[in-house]
Amino acid sequence: MDSRNDRILKAVDRLFDDQVRFLETLVRFPSLRNEEAAAQDFIEAALRARGFAVSRFRTDASRIGEHPAFSPATVDYAESWNVVGRKPAAGSGGRSLAFNSHVDVVPAGSPHRWTSPPFEPVRDGDWLYGRGAGDMKAGLVASIFALDAIAGAGLSLRGDVQVQSVVEEEITGNGAATAFTLGFTADAVLSPEPTDEQLVRANAGVLKFRLETKGRPAHPREPESGQSAIDLMIRLIGHLRTLEARWIAERQDKRLFGDLANPVALTIGTIAGGDWIASIPSDCAVEGRIGFYPGEDPKARAAEFEAFVERIQAEDPAFAGERLVGLDWVGVMHAGYELPEGGEAETCLRAAHADTHAGEDLRAYVMACYLDAAVFSVHGGIPALVYGPVAENIHGIDERVSLSSLRRVTKTLALFAADWCGVEDS
Amino acid sequence: MDSRNDRILKAVDRLFDDQVRFLETLVRFPSLRNEEAAAQDFIEAALRARGFAVSRFRTDASRIGEHPAFSPATVDYAESWNVVGRKPAAGSGGRSLAFNSHVDVVPAGSPHRWTSPPFEPVRDGDWLYGRGAGDMKAGLVASIFALDAIAGAGLSLRGDVQVQSVVEEEITGNGAATAFTLGFTADAVLSPEPTDEQLVRANAGVLKFRLETKGRPAHPREPESGQSAIDLMIRLIGHLRTLEARWIAERQDKRLFGDLANPVALTIGTIAGGDWIASIPSDCAVEGRIGFYPGEDPKARAAEFEAFVERIQAEDPAFAGERLVGLDWVGVMHAGYELPEGGEAETCLRAAHADTHAGEDLRAYVMACYLDAAVFSVHGGIPALVYGPVAENIHGIDERVSLSSLRRVTKTLALFAADWCGVEDS
Repeated sequence: MDSRNDRILKAVDRLFDDQVRFLETLVRFPSLRNEEAAAQDFIEAALRARGFAVSRFRTDASRIGEHPAFSPATVDYAESWNVVGRKPAAGSGGRSLAFNSHVDVVPAGSPHRWTSPPFEPVRDGDWLYGRGAGDMKAGLVASIFALDAIAGAGLSLRGDVQVQSVVEEEITGNGAATAFTLGFTADAVLSPEPTDEQLVRANAGVLKFRLETKGRPAHPREPESGQSAIDLMIRLIGHLRTLEARWIAERQDKRLFGDLANPVALTIGTIAGGDWIASIPSDCAVEGRIGFYPGEDPKARAAEFEAFVERIQAEDPAFAGERLVGLDWVGVMHAGYELPEGGEAETCLRAAHADTHAGEDLRAYVMACYLDAAVFSVHGGIPALVYGPVAENIHGIDERVSLSSLRRVTKTLALFAADWCGVEDS
Repeated sequence: MDSRNDRILKAVDRLFDDQVRFLETLVRFPSLRNEEAAAQDFIEAALRARGFAVSRFRTDASRIGEHPAFSPATVDYAESWNVVGRKPAAGSGGRSLAFNSHVDVVPAGSPHRWTSPPFEPVRDGDWLYGRGAGDMKAGLVASIFALDAIAGAGLSLRGDVQVQSVVEEEITGNGAATAFTLGFTADAVLSPEPTDEQLVRANAGVLKFRLETKGRPAHPREPESGQSAIDLMIRLIGHLRTLEARWIAERQDKRLFGDLANPVALTIGTIAGGDWIASIPSDCAVEGRIGFYPGEDPKARAAEFEAFVERIQAEDPAFAGERLVGLDWVGVMHAGYELPEGGEAETCLRAAHADTHAGEDLRAYVMACYLDAAVFSVHGGIPALVYGPVAENIHGIDERVSLSSLRRVTKTLALFAADWCGVEDS
């Protein structure tokens, strides 16, 4: 087996220049929401060329509200394409594995603040820059090239293997939910999100909301005759900070989350209000998210959030009168998960990690955000390992992934797959 | 003279149906910023048909920063057209008069919240609805039909008269500034803004600003690694409320402004920030305005505002590090004015008002906002009377003007012009 491992590691090294070029090409597809088709074409072609049986399917809106893996969506899914490549086991008796990655990326923020254009990959020393380079195109590419390396080492996996390239992770998780409910599951899932080569022990449940305030527009010569929707929104956000603080305080009773500064993280991602510099604005809207703890029902947390907003409107005189606040759920409404310690999949990954890190032990940590791994863990009871490369500034300016880390992770994934599924000479 | 007045009043009544139809047509031109040309075509044609000599001229950006009547602008003035119609005195010895109105309107806010479409005039009893109906197309039309009534009564004015239809009042005042600096002045200016048939004794100086905050975008899994530009902006607005409170407190020492609840009125008209629901936003921008007292140098107040923002950045740790706040002046930067009591023009208007209000005395009040009358008052020392019809919800939803008030105001304006300029039989 050691010589097989050596062959795999050498194959990763041999293929690594190709792998980086593949990643650079993938970064050039600006796979923003509902614009992932070109990137998926590229992935589909790459998987077919490698002998995978490829399924391409739209994200399924019909199951929203019908299956708890699905979250509310605000867009048509006519252009929301997922790709799964499957390669059947060469022999028998091996365990199956699904690599799950998402190809959708978040917007670039302020492109003018990037050092180089966000969808033009730039290498600088160990870093590859680009929106999505870290989150998580590098991981997707690592899974493909880990399997290439196994084949390149003259080996075949003894368990069925999948490469999943889903969409919607950054907003609803409905791409993974569709894959899951179509039966694209396995004995273990590995999702190579950018985790700095650590294992995710638990993630957070997440709710994504849209809040709107209505004001009474007026001329600033009589500001008291109007009510500013922007001022109302600022006031509402202030109230929500008390809800956030209350939810944060619960962490003391929550396994794994006690040490996090803010596992809840009420963040306001967007705001838009008013249409004239010298009017009292009539409308304001924000979009944001808030987290909660694994094991909790997202619907119960959503109801708690709704009741809080209701009470603000009832109790704060600034909101008196007609209905001034609108609340919609516009993205992930999903439970978090915990990965039970010491499972067999984790043990395999721990061994592979040690092999590629001079014997260093795999560290685990809590990532207080939504991850597609939650779909497989919560609804399928499947061991879902989230482990991937070092990346910086994901969702930020000048996002970048470490190429040396990408190489190590590709090796770890390859050794893990070989160990988990078993290998035989081709 | 009484019989002349009667003839004038009867002529207003006779022409009033035509006047309302004229106003309805004018409301149909959605004369938003830089889109006033069609409305000005209509005004120009109407003035030429009445025998006015018409000047049509672009708002002059070249004098911004060169002449204190001009304020900073953020748009090209290639499509920013002003119209002035002039009719020379029939006889000699009369005083000249300029009716000054603005044809630009503010956006409709949320059109779906209007009872009927904002640029389709709707009559309902005494009210005519439409964006700009009150502010101030009704006033512009009143000035034209007041002069029509004088002519219709077989009379001619003994002083030169102008009908000014300028733009940019709602943002910079540069339309009036251009007219003023081109020499379109007179012995008195009457601006029929919607004042509920009262006289404006004083207005406020106004500054219009744009503020930008820069955050450090990040993934919400590590909110502490980023800094939200939206949260920073909310914090900055909170600080500005203390500046507003300080400026409000100064009203005790200010003539005429002591009784106003908020003569300063820091209002945030627009806000926009972030581009993704689950990112820590990198940028946020607001536009707003703040007022100050007549007799004060707007540049000194702007410097005070700038110093305040500087100090916030220096003293509040949330703003530490790189430069996180940007400030631009994007609209009116102009002094307020006071109308000295008891001037001859005011006396004429008071008499005309009494004639059309069963002897009721003209009331005066303070309007704490920018008015184009300030250009003529501050820079020309010209008596500038702001007096116009009853209107509601200006800058708001379902803006409307009272038609019975419009008729009274048209009569008042006609009697005022006849008295101020003098009349003779044609």
